Amino acid sequence: MAYDFLLKDLQSNLTQKAIGTDKGLAKIGDGVVNLVYSVAKSMHLTKTTNSKVIIRTGKNVSKTILAEALKEANMKPFSRSRADAHDLADTVEAIIAYVWLNGDITIKQLIVFLLEHLIGNLNNRTEEINSARVAFTKLLNHIKQYLPIC
Amino acid sequence: MAYDFLLKDLQSNLTQKAIGTDKGLAKIGDGVVNLVYSVAKSMHLTKTTNSKVIIRTGKNVSKTILAEALKEANMKPFSRSRADAHDLADTVEAIIAYVWLNGDITIKQLIVFLLEHLIGNLNNRTEEINSARVAFTKLLNHIKQYLPIC
Repeated sequence: MAYDFLLKDLQSNLTQKAIGTDKGLAKIGDGVVNLVYSVAKSMHLTKTTNSKVIIRTGKNVSKTILAEALKEANMKPFSRSRADAHDLADTVEAIIAYVWLNGDITIKQLIVFLLEHLIGNLNNRTEEINSARVAFTKLLNHIKQYLPIC
Repeated sequence: MAYDFLLKDLQSNLTQKAIGTDKGLAKIGDGVVNLVYSVAKSMHLTKTTNSKVIIRTGKNVSKTILAEALKEANMKPFSRSRADAHDLADTVEAIIAYVWLNGDITIKQLIVFLLEHLIGNLNNRTEEINSARVAFTKLLNHIKQYLPIC
């Protein structure tokens, strides 16, 4: 991508914490996460609903879901020590912004990945929370390959 | 793109109002608009700031800016009659979601277009509002070619 210069300062001393605690990356990642989840959810609902109705929806992914996904992917070291759920969610957003800006994964690939791993009835709140948590955990495990090892 | 099936119902009777008053498209477009503006603003600030500092930021584009852009691009007919500023902004978001989902323009192209048209000191609130309004007006004029003529 043409915008990896937005990462130049990080790349000079690239660590898990430098990525995971960057507030600007978290802000950009917040937009990426909500957009790709909204489209993946719309596609899943359209494909699984019995009628021929097309469903388009926007959805902010809850901080709790992202925080749980970070823990389940064993990636808490990317966050600051004594991080609360909000910090952990910011870390997920920062990581996703990092790999996207760096050109490791596209918006389309993020949507396709989530769609492949979203299951169940996303109109049911409990099922949606579980399904989103699992899908984001798998996404984090998938993008580990693009991240520093310490 | 692989997700233009999310537009199938609209395409069977494609009108300006069908696109511009679709609530689901507006929700998806809200994410697109805020993401591309955040990255374009980050790039502009990084390029124009005198120091070597890299600036990453997230920014929600105000409804007022989007509503003004729709009016200046003479695209009010896409919105419902007696639309208020919020409705007009939703229409801009729906239009941008439509052309993106339809594959007419990519996230990267949206960012590059905004970056090319953002000018001035975006750290100054008044300058940012003017600059963003002009940039979104130009973007709407640019994407008219992908939209129905009535």
